[in-house]
Amino acid sequence: MLKLRSSPASPFGRKVKIAAKLLGVFERIEVVATSTTEPDDPIRALNPLGKIPALELGDGATLFDSRVIVEYLDHLAGGGRVIPAEPEERFAALRLQALCDGLCDAALLQVYEFRMRAEGERSQNWLDLQAGKVTRTLAALEASPPPVGQGIGEIALACALGYLDLRFEGRWRDEHPRLVTWLDAFAAATPAYAETAPH
Amino acid sequence: MLKLRSSPASPFGRKVKIAAKLLGVFERIEVVATSTTEPDDPIRALNPLGKIPALELGDGATLFDSRVIVEYLDHLAGGGRVIPAEPEERFAALRLQALCDGLCDAALLQVYEFRMRAEGERSQNWLDLQAGKVTRTLAALEASPPPVGQGIGEIALACALGYLDLRFEGRWRDEHPRLVTWLDAFAAATPAYAETAPH
Repeated sequence: MLKLRSSPASPFGRKVKIAAKLLGVFERIEVVATSTTEPDDPIRALNPLGKIPALELGDGATLFDSRVIVEYLDHLAGGGRVIPAEPEERFAALRLQALCDGLCDAALLQVYEFRMRAEGERSQNWLDLQAGKVTRTLAALEASPPPVGQGIGEIALACALGYLDLRFEGRWRDEHPRLVTWLDAFAAATPAYAETAPH
Repeated sequence: MLKLRSSPASPFGRKVKIAAKLLGVFERIEVVATSTTEPDDPIRALNPLGKIPALELGDGATLFDSRVIVEYLDHLAGGGRVIPAEPEERFAALRLQALCDGLCDAALLQVYEFRMRAEGERSQNWLDLQAGKVTRTLAALEASPPPVGQGIGEIALACALGYLDLRFEGRWRDEHPRLVTWLDAFAAATPAYAETAPH
């Protein structure tokens, strides 16, 4: 049995869960709730970075981060499934994943600005820098929503938009109608998206 | 001709450069100095995240981040070179790369705490959180330095240690003698490490 350390709100953990469901390996994974802020949580021993998701393989080894875990699960499922094997498709999918992971990183840094710091320690300059990354990325994706069939790239985009729904009250929806349509279509075609929604 | 947007100090850019040299594709790449803090720099149009490194492919497409670029260059060089094809080796290399990239992220966040914020906006709690990631990762690597032959994992480790040398006065060296030995051996075997040293 594989053990996935994650939390319901993590967009990177959600990406792994959706990939696992699409790959048919989710039943081989026990999901264990994990706190990255609690020093005694086992995560810091399993992953020195103290980050989720992390996948315990059962032989003492732990894989991270989400990209490596997804590639491992894809390999378990035969390979070339959610990460296409054909080079052109593969690099389009990996590029889109990198873009959407970066969007999540910038969104998370804004959340951490409030969660991890005292009120007087917040920086509007830093918040603006991170918000700019999110704004430019959404604008680029709205101008050209990805075609279906981009595997992990699509999954990463759906999880990024879901995280903006969760933590930023879905404000992205007002000015990005094509991405709203895109996400609706992804969710309709991918039951795993609703199944992994944070509570 | 490929165009790599980077800066001399970026550990992620250095990782790409070393990989390109080992793969024999560095001569096909023009390296273009890039500023991520200057709003008019082309990087924000090429990569909405405004991050380096980014690789312009010459057909209008731009690849990022460093992991995707390295995999692309490995593919150009035939595949399975700095990213091993055999699964056990591959996931060991990718895991080590993820760990060392995460170390760099935590080190960069400490640098940014001083560079991007006014003095009163700094948080000791945040700095301690990031320093903890670096400390735990160095301790784990010191306890068990990676064997040679881990391809991109090794390159990422060397670049992470090089970044600590550059920005944290090499203080990691005092308590991590096995990693010092490891880095000396890597540098001796890999001329590309000295060739890509930040000025």
